[in-house]
This record gives sequence, C-alpha cells and structure tokens, in this order.
Amino acid sequence: MASPVTPRSQDFPRWYQDVITQAELADNGPVRGTMVIRPWGYAIWERIQAEIDRRIKEAGAENAYFPLFIPESYLTREAEHVEGFSPELAVVTHGGGRQLDEPVVVRPTSETVINSFIAKWVHSYRDLPMLVNQWANVVRWELRPRLFLRTSEFLWQEGHTAHVSEEDARLYALRILREVYQSTMEDVLSVPILLGHKTRRERFAGAIRTWTCEGMMGDGKALQMGTSHELGQNFARAFGIQFTSEAGTQEYAWQTSWGVSTRLVGALIMAHGDDAGLRLPPALAPVEVVVVLIRDEEATRAAAQQLVSELAAASRRVRLDDRVATSFGRRSVEWELKGVPVRLEVGPRDLAEGQVTLVRRDIQEKRTVALAGAVTESVAALAAVQSGLLAEALQAREERTFSASGGDEAVEAVEAGGFALLPWDALGEEGETRLAGSGLTVRCLRRPDGTLAEADDESGLIAVVAKAY
Amino acid sequence: MASPVTPRSQDFPRWYQDVITQAELADNGPVRGTMVIRPWGYAIWERIQAEIDRRIKEAGAENAYFPLFIPESYLTREAEHVEGFSPELAVVTHGGGRQLDEPVVVRPTSETVINSFIAKWVHSYRDLPMLVNQWANVVRWELRPRLFLRTSEFLWQEGHTAHVSEEDARLYALRILREVYQSTMEDVLSVPILLGHKTRRERFAGAIRTWTCEGMMGDGKALQMGTSHELGQNFARAFGIQFTSEAGTQEYAWQTSWGVSTRLVGALIMAHGDDAGLRLPPALAPVEVVVVLIRDEEATRAAAQQLVSELAAASRRVRLDDRVATSFGRRSVEWELKGVPVRLEVGPRDLAEGQVTLVRRDIQEKRTVALAGAVTESVAALAAVQSGLLAEALQAREERTFSASGGDEAVEAVEAGGFALLPWDALGEEGETRLAGSGLTVRCLRRPDGTLAEADDESGLIAVVAKAY
Repeated sequence: MASPVTPRSQDFPRWYQDVITQAELADNGPVRGTMVIRPWGYAIWERIQAEIDRRIKEAGAENAYFPLFIPESYLTREAEHVEGFSPELAVVTHGGGRQLDEPVVVRPTSETVINSFIAKWVHSYRDLPMLVNQWANVVRWELRPRLFLRTSEFLWQEGHTAHVSEEDARLYALRILREVYQSTMEDVLSVPILLGHKTRRERFAGAIRTWTCEGMMGDGKALQMGTSHELGQNFARAFGIQFTSEAGTQEYAWQTSWGVSTRLVGALIMAHGDDAGLRLPPALAPVEVVVVLIRDEEATRAAAQQLVSELAAASRRVRLDDRVATSFGRRSVEWELKGVPVRLEVGPRDLAEGQVTLVRRDIQEKRTVALAGAVTESVAALAAVQSGLLAEALQAREERTFSASGGDEAVEAVEAGGFALLPWDALGEEGETRLAGSGLTVRCLRRPDGTLAEADDESGLIAVVAKAY
Repeated sequence: MASPVTPRSQDFPRWYQDVITQAELADNGPVRGTMVIRPWGYAIWERIQAEIDRRIKEAGAENAYFPLFIPESYLTREAEHVEGFSPELAVVTHGGGRQLDEPVVVRPTSETVINSFIAKWVHSYRDLPMLVNQWANVVRWELRPRLFLRTSEFLWQEGHTAHVSEEDARLYALRILREVYQSTMEDVLSVPILLGHKTRRERFAGAIRTWTCEGMMGDGKALQMGTSHELGQNFARAFGIQFTSEAGTQEYAWQTSWGVSTRLVGALIMAHGDDAGLRLPPALAPVEVVVVLIRDEEATRAAAQQLVSELAAASRRVRLDDRVATSFGRRSVEWELKGVPVRLEVGPRDLAEGQVTLVRRDIQEKRTVALAGAVTESVAALAAVQSGLLAEALQAREERTFSASGGDEAVEAVEAGGFALLPWDALGEEGETRLAGSGLTVRCLRRPDGTLAEADDESGLIAVVAKAY
C-alpha cells in the first residue's frame, strides 16, 4: 500500500502537514492559529514533559503556577522587553458580563508576574537561589501559524531563577542548558544539537547572554529548540528583586530564565520523519512495540498475547493490533505513519516454523526471529532505534555542514540546504545584517573545537549560519 | 511558640486563609479572583493530578489538548447549557494588535470544542467508546473568589466520552466515579465521601443524571469534590455526534463527562487542617518525613544524614532541615504549618542514648525511638497517618450526621454544623426549594444502605442536606 504522505523531498512543508494529519498528531483549532493536540501527539508531549520535568527537579527548581491573566500595566515595567510582544497580545476587555475597568492580557509569558512574586518572596541571601518553574499555556497571536512550530497558543515551561552572584546565575543557566535541555534532546528525542551563544541581534531582549540549542531538520534548516538566558540584574532592577547580603548590604539579584515548548514535537517530526511518516525514538513512543496479529487463529492469538504479556512484564509499552477485519497492509501503513519503533507480526506461516517477523521502523528492516527470542530481540531493537536515530541525524547534519570563508559562500552553501560555518570575527554584525537580506541568520556562535565559549565576544568564534524555522 | 493561625473553631474562613498563607500554599494573583499556586501547594496538586491521571489512563481514556480560545458562536450550540455561563465568561476582543472580527471566549470548559472534534473523529461503532480527557486551565469570572475553592481561573481535568449505548455510558460514568474519584479521594486524600445522585435542581444542565462525591469539611459544611455526568444523547444531537451502528443505521452516541479541579486542594485543607495548620496524608505530602537537626555537631549531623539516606533509599520523600541558625521552635511550627506527616528530631541528648524523637503530625504524638529502628518506625507512622486521617474524618462526619424527619428539623441539625438525612419522598422538590431559602441544599440522594441507586427517581431514597461551599 502506498504511503498517503507527500514525499519529503518533493515538498517538505506539505510532507510535514501530511505526517501530522495522517499520524493523528494534531488538528487546527476553530480559532485561527490554535491547535488541537490529539491523543497520539499529546502522549508524545507528555513524555517529553515528564523527561524535562524530572531533570528540572533534579536541578533543584520547584514547580508553581501563576495566573493566565496579567494586568496590562505589568507589561510596561520592562519596556525594552515588551516592545517585541505587543502586536502578539490577546486582550480581554470583558469579564463577568461587563467591560473591565482595566483590560487584562492573556500571558505571552509569565515573566512579569513571576518576577513580581519573586520580589515579594526574596528577602535575604538565605532565600537564594530561588528556582521557580512553570508548565503552562501561553498566547502570542500568530499571523502565519504552523502546527507545533508557531501556534497562537502553545504549551511550554518557563523557568525563572534569582541568585546571589553573576557567577552562580551563569552556572545555573548552563546547567539547565546541558543537564536538562541537551540531555533530553539528544538522549530522549535523539536529535543532536549545537549549543552556543546567540548574537546580540538574535539574543532575547533583556538578556545579557542567550544560550541556544539548535537542531537541524530534515530539509537542512535550523530549528531553535530551547534557550537559556543570563539576565544579569536587568529584571531585578525593573521588578525590585533585592536581598540583604551576608554582609548586610542591599543587593539586586542575578537572574536566569529558560524555556522549551510544544515546538519540540515539531522538531521530532522534522528531524526523524521519512516518506512513510513519523519515526519515534522509543523513549517517547506512546507504543514501543506493536504486536500485529495477521490472521486470527487460536495459535496466532495465543502467541501474540503471550508476546504482549512478556513485553508488558519487561516494562515496555506494548499494544496488540488484532483488527483482522482491516487489511494487514493498511494496518502496517498506519503503524509506520505513527512511527512505532518496532513491529512484531504474528502469522500462521511464520508461526508454523516457530517464528515471528520483527520490523524496525527506523531502517525498515524486516526479519524473522524465533518466537522464543522475540522479546529479547525486540528490546535490543528498541535500543538500536534509539541510538540509530541519533547517529543518523548526526550524520545527516555533518554531511550538510559546510565551512565557508565569507558571506556569499555561506549563502550558496545554505541555499543547497544546510549549515555554513564562518569565522565570526570576519563576518561581524554587518555581515550578519547582509545575510539577513537573504533570509539567513546566525544560529549560534561556537568555539572551533565545539566547547562552549565563555562569552559571545571571545575572539576566534565560529558563526553557524542557516535558514531557520 | 504559638501558632500564627486563627483558631479553627473561632473563625473557620479566617483559619482557612491563614493556613494557606502560613503554609505557603497560594497567594492572590494581581488580577482579582486569580491565584498564584506556590511551590508547596503546587507539589500537592501535582501528586493529586498524578494519582487521578494514572487512574484515568487505567480506565482507558487518553489525554489530549484543546485550545484555550473558543469562538463565541460555539457557546450557543447547546443553549440550555450556556445560559448558566455567560456572566462568567472572559471575552477577548483584541488580538494581533487589532480588534477581532469575531470575539473569542476564554474556555469556561472545553465541552463545546471537544464535542465538535469527537463528532469529526467518530464515524463507526468501531470508533467507540471514544474516551478523551484534558488537563487544562479554565476561566469562570468569579465575583466572590476564595483560594482553591472559587477562583476565576482554576486547573482541572475534564473527561468527555462517547459510547454506543446508554448502558455503556452509564457504566463508564460510574467507573470514573468509583475507580478514579472515590478511590483517589478516600485512599489518597484520606477524605471520606458520600456518593449519590444530584437532584434535578442541582444537576448539571444538559445531563440526564449527575453523580457526585460530597465531602464534609471541618466546619460541618459540604464540599462537592467531583462529579460524573450521564449526558444521554443531548450533546450528541447538539454537536452531531453520530455513528454507523453494527446494523448499518445512523445513531447518536451516548455520552458522559466528568471533572475534578484544584478545589481538591481546598478539600484537603478543610477536611484535615487543625489549629497548628495543614495535616497532609503522606500519599500527597511533598515531604513525608523531615529530619530536623537540633544542634549541628558531628554526631548529630552524621546520624541525621544517615536517616535521610535510608529513608530516600526506602523511596520516601525526605528532607533534612539543618537550618540551626533558626530556632528549633520556629522550625517545628513551620513543619507543622506545612503539614509534614512525620518529623524526626535529632539532638545530642537523645542521641547519646541511641535515640531520636519521632513526631506524628496528625495526633501530635511525640515519642523517642531507637536510632536503629527510626526508619522502620517512620514508615509505620506514615501508614498510620494515612489511615488515621481517613478514620478521624469519617468519625467526625458520623458524629455530625443527623437523621431528621422534616425540613425544620433538618435546618436545625445543619445550623449546628453537619449533614441532615431526610426521606426524599417526603421532602420532594418543593421541600428542597423551601430549604434553599435557609441556604441549605440537597447534596445528594442515596439509598438508606449507602449503595448507589439505579436512578434518582427510585423510591425510598435519602436526601443528604447541608450547607455547602
């Protein structure tokens, strides 16, 4: 049976939309720009969320919840920052059946309100570090929406922290970047990322330094998958976050903020998907192994059920597909669209020889295995898919990464689909502005050896240039 | 050290507010009626959520996410239902920097949008039952807000299901009521509940039957902690949820809906709290055992750290309080306010005799135990607190439940603080209306033996009458 998905090489955006529809990940909501996350898509998001959440807690931050509605006046406190948002705001003017005295804004981020409360809660150096995280929906009006990548409402986490010193804040921003974000993206999503500094142009307004995680998608474009900011004392001054130091003086706190969103589901689709649909790393797959009953006979059903029980006992997420009224071909296509990493097909012919067929979704490898060893083989195959997807994405990125000496060469390299590496000292902010004219951006600044630079003005840095989502 | 909380018997509402403030559970948000859930309060909510979520998944429902914004027109589809909400709506009139052509409403529930999508997704009897759940924030403008109990924005889950038959829908509504709600409320929150039918007056608009979980709070008033509705085909007709039956005919689906919210945190506070603050059942306590270091000496610190390690190894949530710069009395008061079930106090005097002090928060029992047996004793104490709180609440409810023969007697019984039991056949809807004049409501209808009645018009039912939150 042919895949109901547009070939990826033919039309990447259409392929992306087809995969979302056919794998039943999401739908457009009734209000333009909004999204319905369907059970299959939401189960993936829940797992991403759980992985991030566990790591955030290990890093010592605590979850809290702040209100959806923010007084309009709050958004003018940190003026530099707000300017970027105002056309994106949704404004509530009526509540309780009447016009409100002061309109309220639906949070585009909870930064202002969280910082107001941190200011209330922090008194002394003993209260620091204060490490707060929130999982919530936020709204930024989107004129050109795209499911998971740019929607008017999206789900995310935003962390806001206050520290006694610049050093402490920087180390924490970096800890989140590496131990929470990089770890989840590479070890769980199997998406290799480039860590680096944002340039001043791309930096979050109000931050003194923005660290970013940049992934390469299947079309060679970049996706910013998460950021961690050092805020210096900018917000502390704006919101009055002061503390009594150990020496008894009044000081402004040093802060960080950091976030990732449902955009990560978009990253997952675009980094791994192929012409047959989604390819899920097992760590995130709502179903890791689907046992497909080819024909419903006593022996095949018994064998299939046995496999399901054993895989469940081995703590694997497993599902039995016994919808024999639907053709085998259609069901195979469905599980491939949905990206289930391993399929075990149980049919009478194989079974007569004590075998079942094991299919690995990532490399579409199909082989018969002994029934008795099918669980062990499946578990091994899952581990192979998890690391295989990462290796494959890494190789694809390397093949599409080109060293360039100047802007024109970079444009050429990136037009072909990929990342161009340029010496930042030579390119500079002027060069960056010129590139922007061709729709290219500096995704991040890195040391040639890949280690993280102390500061974005260190000499000898390499600019990673690409088109971006 | 005296408790900074108003005595419960003196002023219950003020006591409730004091506990919330002193235990650092929540704060008022900047927009009237909104709430900031602080880390201690949110950690409790996260555990409630995890327990409910696990049970919902075991009952076969899948999580999904639907948009915050709903077109105004959607809310007029099921007119009977909407009338109740309109003064509660928050309306967004501006987005993307300009006035919207059609204003959008911030969801007061996602019922209309979820049903619209269920209508899209259901085609055949093979697609049924369709069991969808959502965790989200909703907004109902609140003129007399009260933290956790009535806030303009609150967090909840709402389940919406579609079934082939009335029987199947009813069984599912009951399954959620018992296996998800009753189980969580009694086994996890340690709050005994009365299950029963709502009267027509108290029933959810649009439902043919509403089942409720009613708890008694510390002041003898009732709190509706969760409801599960049989919707018949009302919504299916309004939203066009039709399916092709096995026989090939077009049929309307039979539906249920059900929900619980952050109100459960309010229930927890009011059911168990005492004059020293919160009392948490261990299943929900962010910290089950706090090890309090009385004086920081080599031996005491080593013993305390050993206890922390062993409790953590036994999968207990444990925290070391080594803030010896703060007085021991102040720290004890703090942990009592926060409701931590078990405290282990490690001081030099006890330790010299190979002992530590174990304090049970629920009964304020303080006794010395051998250091070597402290972990075992703590684990046993936790189990005792979990069941002890339930038993205590059950006893309190029984002592405050009175059989009455008529309306006047009921008023008297309930004025004294408690539940009155009346024969529903004698009271009837007219009697119910009269009681409403005195601020009394029928919380639910039950069989005299406590089993669930098949229908709310069964004869011989008992009405549970109370004042309610």
